[in-house]
Amino acid sequence: MATHILIIVSLLAIISAPVTASDPSPLQDFCVAEHSNSVTINGFACLDPELVNADHFFFSGLHVPGNTSNALGFGPRPTQIPGLNTLGINLARADFATEGVLPPHTHPRASEIVTVLEGSLFVGFVTSNPLNRLISKVIQKGDVFVFPIGLVHFLYNVGNAPASVISTFSGQNPGVVMVPGLFQTNPSIPDEILAKAFQVDKSVIRELRS
Amino acid sequence: MATHILIIVSLLAIISAPVTASDPSPLQDFCVAEHSNSVTINGFACLDPELVNADHFFFSGLHVPGNTSNALGFGPRPTQIPGLNTLGINLARADFATEGVLPPHTHPRASEIVTVLEGSLFVGFVTSNPLNRLISKVIQKGDVFVFPIGLVHFLYNVGNAPASVISTFSGQNPGVVMVPGLFQTNPSIPDEILAKAFQVDKSVIRELRS
Amino acid sequence: MATHILIIVSLLAIISAPVTASDPSPLQDFCVAEHSNSVTINGFACLDPELVNADHFFFSGLHVPGNTSNALGFGPRPTQIPGLNTLGINLARADFATEGVLPPHTHPRASEIVTVLEGSLFVGFVTSNPLNRLISKVIQKGDVFVFPIGLVHFLYNVGNAPASVISTFSGQNPGVVMVPGLFQTNPSIPDEILAKAFQVDKSVIRELRS
Amino acid sequence: MATHILIIVSLLAIISAPVTASDPSPLQDFCVAEHSNSVTINGFACLDPELVNADHFFFSGLHVPGNTSNALGFGPRPTQIPGLNTLGINLARADFATEGVLPPHTHPRASEIVTVLEGSLFVGFVTSNPLNRLISKVIQKGDVFVFPIGLVHFLYNVGNAPASVISTFSGQNPGVVMVPGLFQTNPSIPDEILAKAFQVDKSVIRELRS
Amino acid sequence: MATHILIIVSLLAIISAPVTASDPSPLQDFCVAEHSNSVTINGFACLDPELVNADHFFFSGLHVPGNTSNALGFGPRPTQIPGLNTLGINLARADFATEGVLPPHTHPRASEIVTVLEGSLFVGFVTSNPLNRLISKVIQKGDVFVFPIGLVHFLYNVGNAPASVISTFSGQNPGVVMVPGLFQTNPSIPDEILAKAFQVDKSVIRELRS
Amino acid sequence: MATHILIIVSLLAIISAPVTASDPSPLQDFCVAEHSNSVTINGFACLDPELVNADHFFFSGLHVPGNTSNALGFGPRPTQIPGLNTLGINLARADFATEGVLPPHTHPRASEIVTVLEGSLFVGFVTSNPLNRLISKVIQKGDVFVFPIGLVHFLYNVGNAPASVISTFSGQNPGVVMVPGLFQTNPSIPDEILAKAFQVDKSVIRELRS
Repeated sequence: MATHILIIVSLLAIISAPVTASDPSPLQDFCVAEHSNSVTINGFACLDPELVNADHFFFSGLHVPGNTSNALGFGPRPTQIPGLNTLGINLARADFATEGVLPPHTHPRASEIVTVLEGSLFVGFVTSNPLNRLISKVIQKGDVFVFPIGLVHFLYNVGNAPASVISTFSGQNPGVVMVPGLFQTNPSIPDEILAKAFQVDKSVIRELRS
Repeated sequence: MATHILIIVSLLAIISAPVTASDPSPLQDFCVAEHSNSVTINGFACLDPELVNADHFFFSGLHVPGNTSNALGFGPRPTQIPGLNTLGINLARADFATEGVLPPHTHPRASEIVTVLEGSLFVGFVTSNPLNRLISKVIQKGDVFVFPIGLVHFLYNVGNAPASVISTFSGQNPGVVMVPGLFQTNPSIPDEILAKAFQVDKSVIRELRS
Repeated sequence: MATHILIIVSLLAIISAPVTASDPSPLQDFCVAEHSNSVTINGFACLDPELVNADHFFFSGLHVPGNTSNALGFGPRPTQIPGLNTLGINLARADFATEGVLPPHTHPRASEIVTVLEGSLFVGFVTSNPLNRLISKVIQKGDVFVFPIGLVHFLYNVGNAPASVISTFSGQNPGVVMVPGLFQTNPSIPDEILAKAFQVDKSVIRELRS
Repeated sequence: MATHILIIVSLLAIISAPVTASDPSPLQDFCVAEHSNSVTINGFACLDPELVNADHFFFSGLHVPGNTSNALGFGPRPTQIPGLNTLGINLARADFATEGVLPPHTHPRASEIVTVLEGSLFVGFVTSNPLNRLISKVIQKGDVFVFPIGLVHFLYNVGNAPASVISTFSGQNPGVVMVPGLFQTNPSIPDEILAKAFQVDKSVIRELRS
Repeated sequence: MATHILIIVSLLAIISAPVTASDPSPLQDFCVAEHSNSVTINGFACLDPELVNADHFFFSGLHVPGNTSNALGFGPRPTQIPGLNTLGINLARADFATEGVLPPHTHPRASEIVTVLEGSLFVGFVTSNPLNRLISKVIQKGDVFVFPIGLVHFLYNVGNAPASVISTFSGQNPGVVMVPGLFQTNPSIPDEILAKAFQVDKSVIRELRS
Repeated sequence: MATHILIIVSLLAIISAPVTASDPSPLQDFCVAEHSNSVTINGFACLDPELVNADHFFFSGLHVPGNTSNALGFGPRPTQIPGLNTLGINLARADFATEGVLPPHTHPRASEIVTVLEGSLFVGFVTSNPLNRLISKVIQKGDVFVFPIGLVHFLYNVGNAPASVISTFSGQNPGVVMVPGLFQTNPSIPDEILAKAFQVDKSVIRELRS
């Protein structure tokens, strides 16, 4: 099962690259990310504005479902739009097989709005104050739901057909912190720490890792 | 024709209520807008967190097209989501009849990403530096395109069928400044000022107003 | 007339270079813009602080009127102050011949305060909510007036003598989006789109372009 | 065991009240939180400045250890300082019995610096890009370590004596999202969702809940 | 002399009311300050937009010199513009008799640009890194000079005629911290602390106080 | 005595390097400062994330007192943590001999919380509105006190034993503007300006300089 999770978590990692929220404001019309620049800064250096064209603000293919043939039944479709650099927004598509799940995770640098394109999903987030309250709902085609920045949230396909959503983020690089990833870190967090933290036997931690 | 424009511009105005970008960061998990509060502040006062439930983060009906039976052939479908207050993001749907147009406009408080659900649109924005360069593209189903904050942009249905998009914004209340609205202000900007500003005869201004 | 507008709009373009609002905060005492740096970022790279001197925070000549001998009767006097980089503020002077006009425009990245040095101007801005309300006033020597970020505003000399103002901006690079520039983009926005958007005959659009 | 966790997680919740980062800037010298104000806003309303005194900027007792007599061996000592409202900073003390642990958690609204007062702790955080890399270290008296905003981190007493730290946060209300809390939400996240998300049998989820 | 300073410092205090920098962004077109609102927040509550008119964005009288008949030879002319709330900008006029001085001070919440209307001033600011470097210049009519946020700066009339400037600020409420005010606090900072801090005899501190 | 002050002020300068508040938000998990990068920007360029390790988030030795054998009896212990770049927080330790003083100063880019490790200190800050009000308190071991951003504050050891504090800042580079440094600038501010500003004889200014 460990391999499954590794593969899946790797898939999930793709979604983290392109997304953000409450980002610093732009200081010019646009600052198209110049990914090839050797200087690494907060965000990205800008391409010479004279070299900018419409394709830097464009991405195609969000009508095509992501591949959900994996243990989670989840298919992410991230975008890559260099023109979003400094603009404080991003988006992605995600697909779900029947009973497919996007596991509990947070975005450290963005709030999110999901819009359901097809299907029926049980979605929710957990508040920190009041403590650990679950705010959840079943959402259908044409529904939208909000996940506030930094809170743990999840999506689960409760319909009997595939489901798909568009996720938009209040930042250019939201990041994604998958809760199950805690059991797959490199190097590992020692068993005794996780066992004590979750108040379970080490054997439970080993099952979560495998 | 003036009546047409007035009606249409009024329609467009609806879209401005729910949207923003680079907003101040939240200082708690969420601050659901309490629209009934008598105290008006930057953004909105928060509902007592104990009274918050999933419906405050929810909106439905974005799968239903907006009404495009008007002179512009444009049907906006704004959202109303009190849970977005302080989160720096918003969204809306827009529909276009054949040759329908969303006239040139700016959002003073948000960048925007449009995602095409159906149809084929010619979209573009105008840069301020370099001066008045048009960056445009025909976009199709599954394509996305970015409009940077504060720049004039437009969408026009160039296909031979209705078109629809989801627009997401990097702020909770983007606002919308319609360029044609300049000729429909209350009270009016005097003819001689607009004639001089656009370097045309006053009769042209009068035609734009009518 | 097209040539007139092109020349004038070019003049206006100068004003856009030096101006901004709600900019990211500085992370050191100052970051004097090093315009010669080959790395382009959000804002500008900083000059080595050891090379900084008083002249980087200085500009002269704002007592000299701008040249208003053009079709608009408008003479901009932008500034160039490398020390303003990261500081969230900028300023410029503008002069107006009798009946001179600064056409309707927005600053995407700054609010503005004008202070009248000489003369009498009719000034105003258009709100987006309530929709298209004009807030205007005749202002005289010693008066100041505020234009909120991103809203369309204009100035017009209603006195029988030249007028001049100091404009200050809440950002280092406000940008300027001239409404008449919409009819002078490169490449052009197709006539049928603008005709539909403004609900006028294409001949009116052609007059606005010429 | 469930009771243990509930008690402990409740203890942990206390730490979330007083903490934040990248908060909106203050618009006056200070804005002492007026917790009794009936109007709830982003952050807190301000006490009348005439009523402000030194005690609003003061808190005492951080030299006293927190109570670690619980299943985690962890004793939080949060602070309550109304004068911190709008200032983008906060702090707390935490104590650890031998083998005491502060379980994996995130702060959605603050980066953190821990300073070790006494003892020896194994601390670490997990990055989101590169995916799930653990960055960790054993830290001793006089050492400091940084946890970037929104990333999962933990502390574990590896010495053979009690340990204590001062934690400072880059925000007035960081919030705390405890990973083990995911199994203690109210209402519960259904077993089948968590089992699928973690790729384990439902019995494992039930052990984590108990 | 103590009375002189008290009077003068009181005069100076007026300048602090109207001014700011890097302020939180607006979430609507404008938020005119409603100073009569009983709820005190970060900045000010907003007047009902339906009650807003042009006068809320207007101030007059900046062509009239401030009164410089005092020991410092300095006459501040602050402004009061409720429409500036949330817009991150402010301005004031200041006048100087021959040898008039605006003593060393900082603005904790704004950078500043001064524009000379008349006369000749020696102006400067002190950097913190490199340590205590003075960056200064004599500026004349039509010159502008920049004071970065939070750094100590001063202005002194070196001409043989009155001088006047317009000061603009990158924030709605910059605040002003006068260095000489340190010797006039209520209650006083004990003599022994200031004597040790400045490495002088207590008699020198007493002279500074008188 | 001038030499004393010069040495001491130089010591104090060290504290300014490592500190900030209300900084721009991070756009990735972390951006470890690459101090060797030849490109200077607002803040620092980022080290290649692949080269980042735990030591970049670590600093040791804060349990060791600073050297207070100087005229002020003040020993600063600044930190150097490259991983703090973009995170909006910093910290330092400071030690005080009996009657040791940290002279009145401001941090232009951070609020501060001091936590007393040992001893008894008289601390205070001066407000700008109301004008020049001193807010002060004697604080002991385990007490914390807040200094709002940009306001003048000081610490003085009133106990009969050494005292020490941990200072944390709401920014990565707070800066420090020492008030006594005004009399030690390079080049000097002319005597006649300071004499007029402080309303004292030039001989008093000369004493303050020496």
